[in-house]
Amino acid sequence: MTQDPLVIFTPSGKRGRFAVGTPVLTAARQLGVDLDSVCGGRGICSKCQVSPSYGSFSKHGVTVAEGALSDWNKVEQRYDDVRGLKPGRRLGCQATVQGDVVIDVPAESQVHRQVVRKAASARAVTMDPATRLAYVEVAEPDMHVPTGDFERLKTALAEQWDITDVTADLAILARIQPVLRKGAWKITVALNQPAEGAAHRIVDLWPGFFEGPLYGLAIDLGSTTVAAHLTNLVTGEVTASAGIMNPQIRFGEDLMSRVSYAMMNPGGDAEMTRTVREALDTLAREIAAEGAIDPAHIVETVFVCNPVMHHLLLGIDPVELGQAPFALAVSGALEMSAAELGLTALSPGARSYILPCIAGHVGADAAAVALSEEPEKSEDLVLIVDVGTNAEILLGNTSRVLACSSPTGPAFEGAQISSGQRAAPGAIERVEIDPDTKEPRFKVIGCDLWSTDPAFAEATAATGITGICGSGIIEAVAEMRMAGLLDPSGLIGGPDKTGTPRSEPQGRTFAYLLHNGTAEGGPRISVTQGDIRAIQLAKSALYAGARLLMDEMGVDTVDRVVLAGAFGAHISPKHAMVLGMIPDVEISRVSSAGNAAGTGARIALCSRAARARIEAQVRRITKVETAIEPRFQEHFVAANAIPHATAPYPNLRSLVPLPQVSFNAGSSGDDGGNRRRRRRPA
Amino acid sequence: MTQDPLVIFTPSGKRGRFAVGTPVLTAARQLGVDLDSVCGGRGICSKCQVSPSYGSFSKHGVTVAEGALSDWNKVEQRYDDVRGLKPGRRLGCQATVQGDVVIDVPAESQVHRQVVRKAASARAVTMDPATRLAYVEVAEPDMHVPTGDFERLKTALAEQWDITDVTADLAILARIQPVLRKGAWKITVALNQPAEGAAHRIVDLWPGFFEGPLYGLAIDLGSTTVAAHLTNLVTGEVTASAGIMNPQIRFGEDLMSRVSYAMMNPGGDAEMTRTVREALDTLAREIAAEGAIDPAHIVETVFVCNPVMHHLLLGIDPVELGQAPFALAVSGALEMSAAELGLTALSPGARSYILPCIAGHVGADAAAVALSEEPEKSEDLVLIVDVGTNAEILLGNTSRVLACSSPTGPAFEGAQISSGQRAAPGAIERVEIDPDTKEPRFKVIGCDLWSTDPAFAEATAATGITGICGSGIIEAVAEMRMAGLLDPSGLIGGPDKTGTPRSEPQGRTFAYLLHNGTAEGGPRISVTQGDIRAIQLAKSALYAGARLLMDEMGVDTVDRVVLAGAFGAHISPKHAMVLGMIPDVEISRVSSAGNAAGTGARIALCSRAARARIEAQVRRITKVETAIEPRFQEHFVAANAIPHATAPYPNLRSLVPLPQVSFNAGSSGDDGGNRRRRRRPA
Repeated sequence: MTQDPLVIFTPSGKRGRFAVGTPVLTAARQLGVDLDSVCGGRGICSKCQVSPSYGSFSKHGVTVAEGALSDWNKVEQRYDDVRGLKPGRRLGCQATVQGDVVIDVPAESQVHRQVVRKAASARAVTMDPATRLAYVEVAEPDMHVPTGDFERLKTALAEQWDITDVTADLAILARIQPVLRKGAWKITVALNQPAEGAAHRIVDLWPGFFEGPLYGLAIDLGSTTVAAHLTNLVTGEVTASAGIMNPQIRFGEDLMSRVSYAMMNPGGDAEMTRTVREALDTLAREIAAEGAIDPAHIVETVFVCNPVMHHLLLGIDPVELGQAPFALAVSGALEMSAAELGLTALSPGARSYILPCIAGHVGADAAAVALSEEPEKSEDLVLIVDVGTNAEILLGNTSRVLACSSPTGPAFEGAQISSGQRAAPGAIERVEIDPDTKEPRFKVIGCDLWSTDPAFAEATAATGITGICGSGIIEAVAEMRMAGLLDPSGLIGGPDKTGTPRSEPQGRTFAYLLHNGTAEGGPRISVTQGDIRAIQLAKSALYAGARLLMDEMGVDTVDRVVLAGAFGAHISPKHAMVLGMIPDVEISRVSSAGNAAGTGARIALCSRAARARIEAQVRRITKVETAIEPRFQEHFVAANAIPHATAPYPNLRSLVPLPQVSFNAGSSGDDGGNRRRRRRPA
Repeated sequence: MTQDPLVIFTPSGKRGRFAVGTPVLTAARQLGVDLDSVCGGRGICSKCQVSPSYGSFSKHGVTVAEGALSDWNKVEQRYDDVRGLKPGRRLGCQATVQGDVVIDVPAESQVHRQVVRKAASARAVTMDPATRLAYVEVAEPDMHVPTGDFERLKTALAEQWDITDVTADLAILARIQPVLRKGAWKITVALNQPAEGAAHRIVDLWPGFFEGPLYGLAIDLGSTTVAAHLTNLVTGEVTASAGIMNPQIRFGEDLMSRVSYAMMNPGGDAEMTRTVREALDTLAREIAAEGAIDPAHIVETVFVCNPVMHHLLLGIDPVELGQAPFALAVSGALEMSAAELGLTALSPGARSYILPCIAGHVGADAAAVALSEEPEKSEDLVLIVDVGTNAEILLGNTSRVLACSSPTGPAFEGAQISSGQRAAPGAIERVEIDPDTKEPRFKVIGCDLWSTDPAFAEATAATGITGICGSGIIEAVAEMRMAGLLDPSGLIGGPDKTGTPRSEPQGRTFAYLLHNGTAEGGPRISVTQGDIRAIQLAKSALYAGARLLMDEMGVDTVDRVVLAGAFGAHISPKHAMVLGMIPDVEISRVSSAGNAAGTGARIALCSRAARARIEAQVRRITKVETAIEPRFQEHFVAANAIPHATAPYPNLRSLVPLPQVSFNAGSSGDDGGNRRRRRRPA
């Protein structure tokens, strides 16, 4: 008796012998080959496309002959006529094994396909979303075996998909009957399984075959801004991104103000919870509109946020986070219904996952940065700073990872700045000041030209020049320092000392005029002494946090720095170092990770394995509490100078000249910022 | 080396050797002895009381000496001073083993104590509620190990109670921090574990030690009436009972009218769902007030109901239940948050359990009757009829159980009867008619005297005589038949034929005057020809259902009959048999089970094992669908006579004489009810 044909799948290399006539999909399933299917092998979904190696040749040690698979059939022909199949492709559920064959599973036919998420680092995420589609054909009701429609649907899932542990909420139970009848007992369900081995929950259902795709929302819920990425849960691609201001700002610009608001106002926490949930609901609708998808196709959300936002989102009074020992109500990862968080625009069965918090001041956003940047896999000692209203700081390598958070305040996001604004078209985002003439030039968001370009006025006529955003103010301050307009203590020089009329008196201090309005009467944009002080406070807090972790690690330098955060990508490393935001390091060793917290949220959205990974990793991270560490205050005060004065900065000195100037005449009414202290928790 | 002391626990007989100094509670736990404790052995709760056998004597083959347990300690003394301990009792967590000893665990110290639930049958339920209390002492937060309060609470439950799989909803997470601080890190939690091996969910929490008890609500949600029993989840005792009319009556008196309402009115199902949920919420508040308990101490509800009420309670459109094949949306048991069902008065974490439905017309109420009456354990062939607006009928024995439901309409509950009312003070509930004088006497609810008693008028002055309830109308009709006032076809004789002026003309038919009002002008109460027809329709449906099951079982007689239902206890077996509600059977073999559905609900409330038992049992019950069975119509028509004429009734004939009368003169305008048909689903 001859042997059954040998089937080899690439790229997995899995192989086995199957009887003549076995469908390729069946063979793949039996071997555990990652071959997608939504319709369960009925020739409807075309997700199981494969590329067999035809012809008589030897490959992988097997001689493949013509006719190794069954002939092209009617179902494939119909699919090709209607939707088109790429040359050489077969439907795995239609083509059957006839002889020895090598079958390639292209990336788009793999459920657990790898998605390269960043060209630079070539890091990849393997798709493993918690929610996926399954098409089933359900038995019609039978009066003599009077089971419920839900029970027959479960039987179908068990028989056709081998999925046995299935639950559904009331809202889904109420929809099963009409959907089954509309689809003539054919139905596609979205099944959510939050972790391997957990029960499957039906989160949505459609009559007949529903192709998808399903979407998820990765949401970085910051104190000042909220950023969301609408993500395709099959490909991992971002379909649309959107951001809004956090409307809780009216209760307090920084986190501690909001905690105070909750303490001082009965019901204040519930008011803030309602406010942010409403904003998230609006954001979800807007992003779906921007992505031109039905918001009901969004079945998952992942949240990353700092601990105060975490508690306010969940409806937990954050009062304990405002005082030592800064106890979190709950620190572990949470999985729940999105509707419980007030997200009404999504699929009614949509789920929410919230990453674990690391400590009372180090939240799920820091965990997301850790998930994205993986300091625990770095051989180099890497410092990761996620810049926002609160800075999340990680320092570590393969042997140990430390984390802390530092209350920088919203200055880096353009708040508390006289002409500040969030990053939006019309905002100044790049600044250069000529050290000789002291004349500035700048770029605004939405225009690639410098302001000195003759075509600039026309190019920016539509947006105007509306203000200065976070990266713009950082560059402006650093450039002022390099141009000798600002001394190391942070004082702006008057026109008599700087020699430029752009140094304008403003009360007892001076301001540097960046932009004198437009012909159409746009705003005058200056950098004031107050702006400098706000930036100094913010950058000192950031640096002090990093320095505290370095102390804890027992080092004076780091091997590399990663700038993350919503505008981390826009900060020039040189300017950040001139400002003294980060420790001195070779400039080529400073990189940007973009919105690492948002990336971490997207990774958790696409991969249950990643969720499990970060849940385990946060327990291994050593937490450092800046609020109770006396050295934090010392580092903070010492870091006030521009650049900071707490350590030598050989790399910076070799990079740019820093004029030795001093504008302190003892009469400026400004003591260099030392009188002002950021509010700290009691 | 001498052996460790031997400890024997009674009544379990479990025994083992333990080191001197081992607390009795610890020994009990290690042996798996069922000894209660809420405080975890801290001498607070006193739930672990035991009765050691002191003195030098031989018991169970062991010689017990004085000093076999440690001396009475301060904790026990304080407890005795404050709360009092019964003589001979010790606290199991305080007394330690010092020598060989026999220790009795009294019933009230057992978690899984047996509760005799019915004196007559001596059947017992072993307490095994899904929710119980656990007191724990939680570690205070530590900035250096910054876990959440919830995580530390979970650690305490794992360490102090060996409970490892713990979840909590958002509402509970939001309360953990204030409760822990109020209780100085001591807390009592109510833990719900719906089934052995399932995760534990924290459903409520209290600062410090909370003694309980916790309560549950067993709710029998009928088409016409809703009955609830407030049940102590430790002792199984009923603390209070309350009933209300189902306010959905305004959408239709019987189930099919309500299904029609849902079909005809967009949003009609949601309207009915809202209506019944609001009524349940009110009922919960009222029953808590009646039981003088805090409604927030109610942590569980169990519902039993027919399929239409089941769907309307859950918010599922019942339209499919109105037409063949009568498909249920969901048939299995359900477990969910009580808040999802609109029960806002209870503990915010309260859970609801709904028994499984048997078939499209045979609901969770029938399952509850099966749980209560256990036909599958009967050696005799038992017919169980649960009489309500829909009758649930079970027939079976150890070899097989059949079930069906029959749409009797609300006549048995006093609706559709000219002077009908629900069972309440003032309602006529017992009737006797003298066969010679044709004069009636009756009793009303709330008074033990017959109406012929001279003191009756005064005794009923407060309530008045307001109408006739279900059991009253059944007795009245049967008595009229026995007195020769009614012929077998159901026609009321005129005064010329009956010889009594109480036979009064009413249009083209006659009515029998039961009560001519009171001196104070209360209502005249008659039994009209329409009333007779309504009762005939109801009883024919009931009998036809029973008969159909007997056909299916292949029998012509049954061994015994159990009358169940809210007013099952009040139906006289003799009258039921005269009426032809039930098959002919020896009168001593007819018993009443009271509200068996309600009892089944209470059993499911007290015992998770019972839930598992009925979930398995419903799958073994053979369902018979009356609506599509042609023989049901045949039996229904044949059962119209009083008594029914479909089978001989030797037992009945030997019991009472039934006059051979006929009042059909061909001109009564009434054809004996054959022209009228109960509405059946299309």
